[in-house]
Amino acid sequence: MSKQELVVLGRDTEGCCPTLLTAPLDEDRAVDLARVFKALGDPVRLRLLSMIASRAGGEICVCDLTPAFDLSQPTISHHLKLLKQAGLIASERRGTWVYYRLLPAMTDRLAAILTRPAGDPLPEPASAPVGA
Amino acid sequence: MSKQELVVLGRDTEGCCPTLLTAPLDEDRAVDLARVFKALGDPVRLRLLSMIASRAGGEICVCDLTPAFDLSQPTISHHLKLLKQAGLIASERRGTWVYYRLLPAMTDRLAAILTRPAGDPLPEPASAPVGA
Repeated sequence: MSKQELVVLGRDTEGCCPTLLTAPLDEDRAVDLARVFKALGDPVRLRLLSMIASRAGGEICVCDLTPAFDLSQPTISHHLKLLKQAGLIASERRGTWVYYRLLPAMTDRLAAILTRPAGDPLPEPASAPVGA
Repeated sequence: MSKQELVVLGRDTEGCCPTLLTAPLDEDRAVDLARVFKALGDPVRLRLLSMIASRAGGEICVCDLTPAFDLSQPTISHHLKLLKQAGLIASERRGTWVYYRLLPAMTDRLAAILTRPAGDPLPEPASAPVGA
């Protein structure tokens, strides 16, 4: 993870610093953070991430991921590469197969920046409910 | 918001149901959820969302959003439309201007599905740390 990503995402877990909801993001931070959300913005990658994260034992062989999808092995590998580049998963080759595991620090950080600070509820505007 | 979205995102806030990290997502839920993350997967939209969410008073005029970007009004409006379609913000026209406000229920739900359940830490695999 880049130093910048650590600044963007790491400090938010401390509860000391602005989150996405409490202060305007600057441009550099927005670029880094958008890359992680973009990695999550695909149904196949979300399914892969949920399969990896929920696997008993904490890791899963790529050979157990591929059969769940009607997609080629190279396509699955491409999606896994994007999740890995976003810092959401890590991989390790052992023998014939590659094994994947969640990097919970990143999902923890995303959860933190999307969480409203305790005691600082967002005010509702005084006007009537807003239409669609 | 569609009924399906409510199923995907709403139940997770109760702490009763699988999150992204505790059970494999089915295909339909992944499609709905990916659309919301995709809306967040752009630096301009993240900056717009943070400006809207952090605004004192809970809402912001589009006339106060546009000057922060080196982008045309139609481009800003397009990004705002995508955030709105994702259920992240709402808008209301009053007189000349449109005012935007956060829909915190959606960010609350995203935070919830990215949060590991208490007492259910993800196990670390027994192997050595994984390389990049």
